[in-house]
Amino acid sequence: MTINNNTTAEATTDFSQLLSPQGVAIVGASREPGKRGHQTLVDLEKSGYEGDIYPVNPKYEGEIQGHKVYQSVSEIPDPVDLAFIATPASTVPSILEECGSADVAGAVVIAAGFSEAGADDLEAQTLEMAREHDIRLFGPNIQGIANVHDGLNLLGGYDIPVGNLALLSQSGNVGLELGSHAAGRCATGFSFNIGIGNETDLKFHEFLPYLNEHEQTDAIIHYVDGMTDARAFLREAQKVSTETPIVVLKGGITNIGQNSAQSHTGSLAGEKAVVDAAYQQAGVIRTEHTDEAVAIADTLAKLPPASGKNIAVLTDGGGNATISADALVQGGFNLPKFTESTRKRLQDIVPDAPNLSNPVDMMGLQGDGDLSIFFDCAEAIVSDPNVDALLLTGVFGGYEEFGPGDTDSKQEADVARDIASLTEEYKVPIAVHCIYSTQGSKALDVFETSGVPTFASLDNAVTSLEKLSQYGEHLSTVERKSDFCLGVEKKNDIEIISEALATGRTTFSEHESRKVLQNAGISLPPFELATTSEEAARAVETFEGPVAMKVVSPEIVHKSDAGGVCLNVSGSESAASEFDRILENTRQYAPEASIDGVLVTPMIDGNREFIIGVTHDDEVGPVIMFGIGGIFVEVLEDVSFRALPLTEYDANLLLDRIDTQELLHGVRGEPGVDRDSLVNLLLDVSSLVKDNPAITELDLNPVFADEDGATIIDASITLSSKY
Amino acid sequence: MTINNNTTAEATTDFSQLLSPQGVAIVGASREPGKRGHQTLVDLEKSGYEGDIYPVNPKYEGEIQGHKVYQSVSEIPDPVDLAFIATPASTVPSILEECGSADVAGAVVIAAGFSEAGADDLEAQTLEMAREHDIRLFGPNIQGIANVHDGLNLLGGYDIPVGNLALLSQSGNVGLELGSHAAGRCATGFSFNIGIGNETDLKFHEFLPYLNEHEQTDAIIHYVDGMTDARAFLREAQKVSTETPIVVLKGGITNIGQNSAQSHTGSLAGEKAVVDAAYQQAGVIRTEHTDEAVAIADTLAKLPPASGKNIAVLTDGGGNATISADALVQGGFNLPKFTESTRKRLQDIVPDAPNLSNPVDMMGLQGDGDLSIFFDCAEAIVSDPNVDALLLTGVFGGYEEFGPGDTDSKQEADVARDIASLTEEYKVPIAVHCIYSTQGSKALDVFETSGVPTFASLDNAVTSLEKLSQYGEHLSTVERKSDFCLGVEKKNDIEIISEALATGRTTFSEHESRKVLQNAGISLPPFELATTSEEAARAVETFEGPVAMKVVSPEIVHKSDAGGVCLNVSGSESAASEFDRILENTRQYAPEASIDGVLVTPMIDGNREFIIGVTHDDEVGPVIMFGIGGIFVEVLEDVSFRALPLTEYDANLLLDRIDTQELLHGVRGEPGVDRDSLVNLLLDVSSLVKDNPAITELDLNPVFADEDGATIIDASITLSSKY
Repeated sequence: MTINNNTTAEATTDFSQLLSPQGVAIVGASREPGKRGHQTLVDLEKSGYEGDIYPVNPKYEGEIQGHKVYQSVSEIPDPVDLAFIATPASTVPSILEECGSADVAGAVVIAAGFSEAGADDLEAQTLEMAREHDIRLFGPNIQGIANVHDGLNLLGGYDIPVGNLALLSQSGNVGLELGSHAAGRCATGFSFNIGIGNETDLKFHEFLPYLNEHEQTDAIIHYVDGMTDARAFLREAQKVSTETPIVVLKGGITNIGQNSAQSHTGSLAGEKAVVDAAYQQAGVIRTEHTDEAVAIADTLAKLPPASGKNIAVLTDGGGNATISADALVQGGFNLPKFTESTRKRLQDIVPDAPNLSNPVDMMGLQGDGDLSIFFDCAEAIVSDPNVDALLLTGVFGGYEEFGPGDTDSKQEADVARDIASLTEEYKVPIAVHCIYSTQGSKALDVFETSGVPTFASLDNAVTSLEKLSQYGEHLSTVERKSDFCLGVEKKNDIEIISEALATGRTTFSEHESRKVLQNAGISLPPFELATTSEEAARAVETFEGPVAMKVVSPEIVHKSDAGGVCLNVSGSESAASEFDRILENTRQYAPEASIDGVLVTPMIDGNREFIIGVTHDDEVGPVIMFGIGGIFVEVLEDVSFRALPLTEYDANLLLDRIDTQELLHGVRGEPGVDRDSLVNLLLDVSSLVKDNPAITELDLNPVFADEDGATIIDASITLSSKY
Repeated sequence: MTINNNTTAEATTDFSQLLSPQGVAIVGASREPGKRGHQTLVDLEKSGYEGDIYPVNPKYEGEIQGHKVYQSVSEIPDPVDLAFIATPASTVPSILEECGSADVAGAVVIAAGFSEAGADDLEAQTLEMAREHDIRLFGPNIQGIANVHDGLNLLGGYDIPVGNLALLSQSGNVGLELGSHAAGRCATGFSFNIGIGNETDLKFHEFLPYLNEHEQTDAIIHYVDGMTDARAFLREAQKVSTETPIVVLKGGITNIGQNSAQSHTGSLAGEKAVVDAAYQQAGVIRTEHTDEAVAIADTLAKLPPASGKNIAVLTDGGGNATISADALVQGGFNLPKFTESTRKRLQDIVPDAPNLSNPVDMMGLQGDGDLSIFFDCAEAIVSDPNVDALLLTGVFGGYEEFGPGDTDSKQEADVARDIASLTEEYKVPIAVHCIYSTQGSKALDVFETSGVPTFASLDNAVTSLEKLSQYGEHLSTVERKSDFCLGVEKKNDIEIISEALATGRTTFSEHESRKVLQNAGISLPPFELATTSEEAARAVETFEGPVAMKVVSPEIVHKSDAGGVCLNVSGSESAASEFDRILENTRQYAPEASIDGVLVTPMIDGNREFIIGVTHDDEVGPVIMFGIGGIFVEVLEDVSFRALPLTEYDANLLLDRIDTQELLHGVRGEPGVDRDSLVNLLLDVSSLVKDNPAITELDLNPVFADEDGATIIDASITLSSKY
């Protein structure tokens, strides 16, 4: 990962030239159906692209599909904004050279056979050529790109429905699948489908500001396997997502990074946990389910963010009431009580309803029912101050096409239009799950075109509403979150760190790790390093009560296994003899290890053990972890992450996000822990790592915490000379 | 819950008479469109019902919809098997009386307004009338019933697609929704849609044997809010599910039973956990997502059960490979390596494929590709001995309709047919997720009609395969599972229990609870009840090492809060003075409490604490729990359940099903616990409760376990006089 706060190419790129080109060269144009260089010409025709099209192929003369063929891009007399290169990987550098002489601004390279297939040199050469000629590259190894509103379809024979979602995808198939999902919804589609591929030149984050400004784009979806500069993305996404919602579909989450870290933090920092936390911090809405991605993005694009997690359900069937309540409660929603006045209004509208509390079950209408009572109930509900969002679920939306007889005195579609108007009027988002959504209806179409998302899947509806409230929460807290900027003011100037780096050492003993913390002003219980049994005997007398003694050696990580730990030692005599025993044990265990001495610390009791750690994620960079420590670290894996640096808000969230909240709040009548001391310790660690980026692994484990404060019991720090 | 092993009505009911009636009376028949009594006549006509139809309404003469109207059911001259009653709740008992005189076998009562609306008397009266006249009742409070193959549609204007799934539903809307989902799939539909409603007479489990024998039914789906006799259902389902897969969609899981139990076990026994465990035991495949239910049932109906969790993925896109691997690994599947010979075969078929290990990514075909290589790859994969099932995911199934140009030398639908034949040939289930499934295609239709389920949702595909392997696992282990039969050989004949019941007592002190265990032959560490300080002093001398002292009072549950516990007491003098202090504390804390004395036990150390408990679930009856004990009981809620009685297999599963397996296997190099001692303790508790059904709550917490065995540290038993 490179943390490049600024790239020259980025600063000067005109994305409207790249994505709304006035002239496109099709390099490798062909007369043979079945070839990409032919298909693309057909596609541009079919999708109504209005710019100029220049087929390029030295083997042809005359015209292809009605366009004059050129032998080379450099022969094209008019300006060419974009070159679409349909030729094999090996030809790309020389074609880019041609493009350069024609002043082409961008090139779409679809071919595979670059770094993903081991051809790193070819990829480097391609990038070099592009940079030399100021050409920005899409791909390589992509399906293509499309600006759907402009009819610029370079996807090779696949259609994509037009709409207001911009897609950046590292997989062609996933991009096509999301297009297919959108095609299954009314009034949803894409403004762009941009292949990202190897991210050789153009990177995910570079597109964000342009898409944010793009008039016909209301939400952005990414499909990502892995990013080359995730921190730049997070920084940019945090800015853009306050205006344009960003949804990320993340693949590869079960390939947990095989980092060689010896720390607990490193081994617990699975890709999913770290990336999840970083996305939350940036306000990026994350999903790992292809099925949901379009529904979520469509919901975020259509509806105002929910101001909380209080949701009302309106339905015409008891089973739908039960199942939706289950799904909502499991999705973290509350189903609040209505005010007395709402209850009265509902009572007047549907006096015989089986249930007028939340969920409202107004019972299915028979053949002669009046559908407008759905609007009346919906209005009563969304005007209730306890309600943040409304889910309408059941038969409504399907009465006319699928229900019995002539149900409606007023057409169902008209009622749908009235219901849709409530969101605008009351600023309360409304989502519709209809049991006939898979089959479609007029009323459902009206909902969709009036800004109310409809769902065939109750789960998608619930998840989308959940994300809507997550987005709302982000917008109201983003000012208090860290902005991902690490800065470079201080650099590893704690003496013990700079000395270690100078001599090429990267591991610290516990004693050295404690010294680092001390130098950073982080308070620890007292400790002494004894290098002789006499020193050990003296040390024990400086502390009150019994002591713990631990061997200090940068080479010995598992001190207990080495017989290098002795607890509850009282009196100077015992201390002296235990010193000798520890040295003997460890010399037997690891004869080659250098031994600095024995660390003597007072014994401290605590029954609530936590861990605070730092690790360096391949994509996100430095991240901090908080969780349950001691023996339960490995057993529970109950930890939360956050990208560094931290704000106070972030530090508090780290505490809030662990599952075992009872240990913080106190079990069986115990008082809760002193949160402030944990929050301050997290902030101190954040500052330490920000100022000393060479610290790539840090474990404080356990940290005892109770109502009086937090105490570091063990510390371990590892450096990397890279930072 | 009543555990009725046998009901007379059940034994004599002819379900084919009820569900394939030769004559149907429509009581409350009407000429007014919009009325149920009219709609039903229209529906029977439309759906092609071939039996006799008798409209009944005293207000009419002549004919309705071409059928002669009768004033009363008793006037109908020919035999009537089934009466459909479309009149209000209050009229039902008298109509049943009429039906009785006409020898009607069954009645479908759709009206609401019975016990669900507080009219318990009316419901009791209705049941009484039905029993008196040997009429079996469907409902009340249901949408209706349908025998789809027979054209018997009594659902009130709603269509349901014909197929091989039988649906029993406690909610009309959910039944209709599942019908709508089936309509969205090719070659899936229903044989029955039977409303269950209040279960006043006919109950879920009674339908199972008939549906199992029904030729056109290949799987059964239930929608359940709550059952009146869940244990009878579980017993019946366990038998039937070995032949016909049963899927349960369970609603109401977040309304955790508000039982007033004081035990840990009672408070942890949330409906979801208990019901989940009981369904697993019965081989019932459980889901809580409406979206998945039809897909799962269709998969179980179409495919042979998977023999394991090793799955292969074949795809034409890298993104699909990544995302499906994520979903499968998260669904508990392994992606095994292929044998060398499979790899070679694949290499020969698609030499340029980006990935030939599992997932196989053969890359998307261009316009001139040959689709038959999908069959070749699929055959190579399913013939690999390491593969239990194959998931085909990506564009295949959509090349012809949605792909570029004339892709295929052989038609895609033909290749689909060839691939479908592999399941039959190799007995390896194959499922297809196509990115164009939402839009449909010829090839996808061929898959569906050839027994290969196709999915628009990758998540549904993965879940369905997961359920298929869960079903396979059940079939291979059902012989070793408990059959839910509690028997009634012994009844509460432990003296201390029968005495308590005789005097109306239901709570036991710790000392009494220990006595119960002792009487049942369950071994405990030694204990003494001291009633004077002298006895306490004597008791401490009979044990080695320090002791624990705890006040014994049936009224004091939270002994520590009362100051009624003292640990680590050494020597007779301390014991005597602690005895006095404990008594003083508790008398201050609870002046009214009767105090039996002070329990004296040796101090026992242990760092791995478990809990074994029993509770009485409202639906399932007696269930046993195993999990992490001590302070972490409430913090982790890491427990597993099983309906009693247990087999050894069940007891082992209880251990296997907790999350924190490390505590059983040993953390940081500790030896694992002695599983046998825990398993035997679970079996002993199972026998104890089977023989003494009055034990409705039991907590052994903590139970210390290590490599040498399991030790009960505290015990608490509560009785109920009901059992």
